[in-house]
Amino acid sequence: MADSKILLAHGSGGRLTHGLIKEVLLKNFRNPVLAELSDSAYIGFKEPLAFTTDSFVVSPLFFPGGDIGKLSVCGTVNDLLMQGARPEYISLGLIVEEGLDLRILERITRSIALAAKNEGVCVATGDLKVVEKGAADKIFINTSGIGRIIKNTRLSAENIACGDRIILTAPIARHGLAVLAKRNELDLGFNIKSDCAGLTSCLVPLLNKVRGIKFMRDPTRGGVATTLNEAAESARIGIEVWEERIPLTSRVRAACELLGLDPLYIANEGCALIVVKEKETARALALLKKYKLSRFARIIGKIVKGHKGEVVLNTAIGTRRIVDMLSGEALPRIC
Amino acid sequence: MADSKILLAHGSGGRLTHGLIKEVLLKNFRNPVLAELSDSAYIGFKEPLAFTTDSFVVSPLFFPGGDIGKLSVCGTVNDLLMQGARPEYISLGLIVEEGLDLRILERITRSIALAAKNEGVCVATGDLKVVEKGAADKIFINTSGIGRIIKNTRLSAENIACGDRIILTAPIARHGLAVLAKRNELDLGFNIKSDCAGLTSCLVPLLNKVRGIKFMRDPTRGGVATTLNEAAESARIGIEVWEERIPLTSRVRAACELLGLDPLYIANEGCALIVVKEKETARALALLKKYKLSRFARIIGKIVKGHKGEVVLNTAIGTRRIVDMLSGEALPRIC
Repeated sequence: MADSKILLAHGSGGRLTHGLIKEVLLKNFRNPVLAELSDSAYIGFKEPLAFTTDSFVVSPLFFPGGDIGKLSVCGTVNDLLMQGARPEYISLGLIVEEGLDLRILERITRSIALAAKNEGVCVATGDLKVVEKGAADKIFINTSGIGRIIKNTRLSAENIACGDRIILTAPIARHGLAVLAKRNELDLGFNIKSDCAGLTSCLVPLLNKVRGIKFMRDPTRGGVATTLNEAAESARIGIEVWEERIPLTSRVRAACELLGLDPLYIANEGCALIVVKEKETARALALLKKYKLSRFARIIGKIVKGHKGEVVLNTAIGTRRIVDMLSGEALPRIC
Repeated sequence: MADSKILLAHGSGGRLTHGLIKEVLLKNFRNPVLAELSDSAYIGFKEPLAFTTDSFVVSPLFFPGGDIGKLSVCGTVNDLLMQGARPEYISLGLIVEEGLDLRILERITRSIALAAKNEGVCVATGDLKVVEKGAADKIFINTSGIGRIIKNTRLSAENIACGDRIILTAPIARHGLAVLAKRNELDLGFNIKSDCAGLTSCLVPLLNKVRGIKFMRDPTRGGVATTLNEAAESARIGIEVWEERIPLTSRVRAACELLGLDPLYIANEGCALIVVKEKETARALALLKKYKLSRFARIIGKIVKGHKGEVVLNTAIGTRRIVDMLSGEALPRIC
């Protein structure tokens, strides 16, 4: 790897990202907190905390259903939730290009404030850097977050066992398609709105009320396929998924057919994949269906004994195929 | 402000930065944690924590005495220390430009790991984004940090009182000059090394052993003059400083004369300004002198009754003048 260059695909969230993180970054930072490669760290202070960071470089800045500001809050809030934590504090690091219209900065800031209010998090600290025209593309936002681990919760891929069910909380592929359509000014004949949302309202009650929640991930870059592969690899278990059960809106289905894209690889920003103990699945599903953001939750698959580390898809036409991680870059700067 | 544009000077750390943060950003995020405009937040979990964030956009990436990696760790570590916290965990958010040589990323990563080790902090979580060529300048790094507030420490500008002394821990203006000289390939006839350093080794013992430490700040962007003005404003007190007592290396003095720059406005990355109760000053100074990074610590001024909110400099030639905050941008992308 030593004499190669960074490719856009290194930022895809798929195979190349994993390789780069493992080969260049992680080897320098071995420590117990980082050991489990989740988006958020578990910190055992007197009170256990989750700690996460995410940079947002989405282009365009505004898209149907959201903007870089809302996204930067919801993305970090969701990463904390995935760790089993109630989001509490976020930081805000802005890198702004010289010449940016102040009204854009104001609009983004208001969007951040609104999202933070909705999710019940406090913007605790911030930083602003300005770089000369051409040295950045308008604005990049980093948010880091601290959350309090919810009592009796310790989510980890290691908990996953054969027979566990996999719940998906909402129809997929909306974020990626919304950004793609807006960026390229595609006229699909209809509008697709990003699912961009923080999941505090449905996931905190779930974690508080349902036992047997073992593992959660939000299928962002790389989509559902990549996230399921990560889970299968890190838990060394097999995953089986039914294509027909994966919730898709008719618009997303039409857009994917039109553009030749596989919705399983398209980014989401308001969905969660939840691995739950079989006998708690009905309770979890019933609870999720009560909340707006997870009202279309469905069981899409289960953990199986065979094909360790792999994700098998039972297709709508009755065949079976292995679904791999995203390789290469489908849609850069999606978040 | 509504129809103006972002200027480079908005990132200077001086008046314009303050204005932008207050008028555009802070008004959207009123909360008790953010109320005190320090670089780091105080969080009262069961155990009190400090939380901070900083983005690094320094150009060039490598300069005498440091690089963007070392800087990104030391800057955040120092922000936590200024809050009276022992730095514990940092996050790492990388925004990388497509085409960056992987060896550069590896070199920076090693530098981050070494600095983290030296400061005793754990890189707990991270994120990597890649943007297309031209959408960022090589690499930007955000680090956020969590620290544990040191027992019996609650540093705040509100503690500052008349008679308190101001200690400066090291010779100033080295970081800004090192970056400036390297960026512009200035041949000064001598090398100036950045003071880039984390101050854990000297400030944790200080906070543990000396009572009467009231307030600390690291004079980064905007330099000593801007930081003292911030303290005077937020504590609503007057500050008096003796120019002759401000530690300067002969090289920095020569470079400033040559370039017509005032060292009081030049960025530092390894110094602290410490406000200490008068009768504890000798103990604080004796302790600081034992550690390498603060061996040249000196009392440079004191808190006075008059001219509230202002910083008065007693010059070397016997005159007195008010020293204002930096206005405009002296050296962009210094950190």
